[in-house]
Amino acid sequence: MRPPRQSRSEQNLGNMIKAGRALAEQRGDLDDISLNEVVKAAETSIGAFYARFKDKEAFLQVMLEAALDEADALTQRSVARDPVWQAGPATAIVDRIVRVYVGQFRQNRGLFRGFLRHYSATGSGDNPMRLANRRIQDLLVPLLARQLDSPRAATADFEVRVAIQFLVGTLANLLLNDPGPLHLEERKLETHLIRMMKRYLMLPEA
Amino acid sequence: MRPPRQSRSEQNLGNMIKAGRALAEQRGDLDDISLNEVVKAAETSIGAFYARFKDKEAFLQVMLEAALDEADALTQRSVARDPVWQAGPATAIVDRIVRVYVGQFRQNRGLFRGFLRHYSATGSGDNPMRLANRRIQDLLVPLLARQLDSPRAATADFEVRVAIQFLVGTLANLLLNDPGPLHLEERKLETHLIRMMKRYLMLPEA
Repeated sequence: MRPPRQSRSEQNLGNMIKAGRALAEQRGDLDDISLNEVVKAAETSIGAFYARFKDKEAFLQVMLEAALDEADALTQRSVARDPVWQAGPATAIVDRIVRVYVGQFRQNRGLFRGFLRHYSATGSGDNPMRLANRRIQDLLVPLLARQLDSPRAATADFEVRVAIQFLVGTLANLLLNDPGPLHLEERKLETHLIRMMKRYLMLPEA
Repeated sequence: MRPPRQSRSEQNLGNMIKAGRALAEQRGDLDDISLNEVVKAAETSIGAFYARFKDKEAFLQVMLEAALDEADALTQRSVARDPVWQAGPATAIVDRIVRVYVGQFRQNRGLFRGFLRHYSATGSGDNPMRLANRRIQDLLVPLLARQLDSPRAATADFEVRVAIQFLVGTLANLLLNDPGPLHLEERKLETHLIRMMKRYLMLPEA
């Protein structure tokens, strides 16, 4: 028995997104991905592709949104399950924030690199990556800010956001230029990013 | 009396580069610059342009190299004239390093944005921006590293380079995505970058 038509189409969509994301990570960028490869890897057809998407651009958008939704869901699950997010201490929350961001950048290296370049071309308006970063910050920043020492309560939110700006800037530039001495796949990347954030926020070091 | 031919051609070249750089900063990027505008602003002709450059790409390269040479010269002059670079203290050197980098990014916002996107497309090979960053670091890092406390002498060079990686990453991402809360034209950008570097390097704050 065949599954109903709608469900096969959904399965095709899922396969195309999965294939596109795998190719982006394999290539490390979006430029070199052809639709032929995507439909071949997804075991579907160009016809099925264009029944679903206006063009490659529209497909890449949906790929990005799928990746960002997945990252959102992972972060929300961590916040729901790991009591440290609510109970602190601040140093342990910094640890987790760094791991959330580094994990996302490692997982979506090719996709993020392609979109960092793409969206930076279109000026300073809102875009899915910026909106996703804002959603994650709105979730995580208050959890850390309220754990900072009370004399700094008024500015704690701002300071945490600045520390995350240093973190995300470093990660974005790693994808774009990889200047070193720290590189994306090295474990010491987390060590130094955590150290930077803790010291910037004047937290004790473990 | 007319100046000799060579000198007029040199003047044309200088005018084209100056016009191109002015347009890049006016537009904030390289994509929207047309050769017609460049030659019109430089009071020269398309013929004179193609006598000098194979294509727009070759011209943009020369623009970038002119900007990077200028930045190099400014930094070298500062190191030669300002005794702090040799005498310290470390905190004052951090101050100057942040101002050198922020100054360059402000001055060449449009040009750097265009090339950050362009070169990030071509993978991880050497490019003029990466080479220029390496030259500046090779000049400045030893001056700061030798001022750090001696127990850390072995790793001082590495730590300074990591701190500069955070600095440059933040600035590059400001050009590409401007995520906030700090923005390129704000004075507090320097304040927070200096604070981050001093705290990361465990230096006293003024």
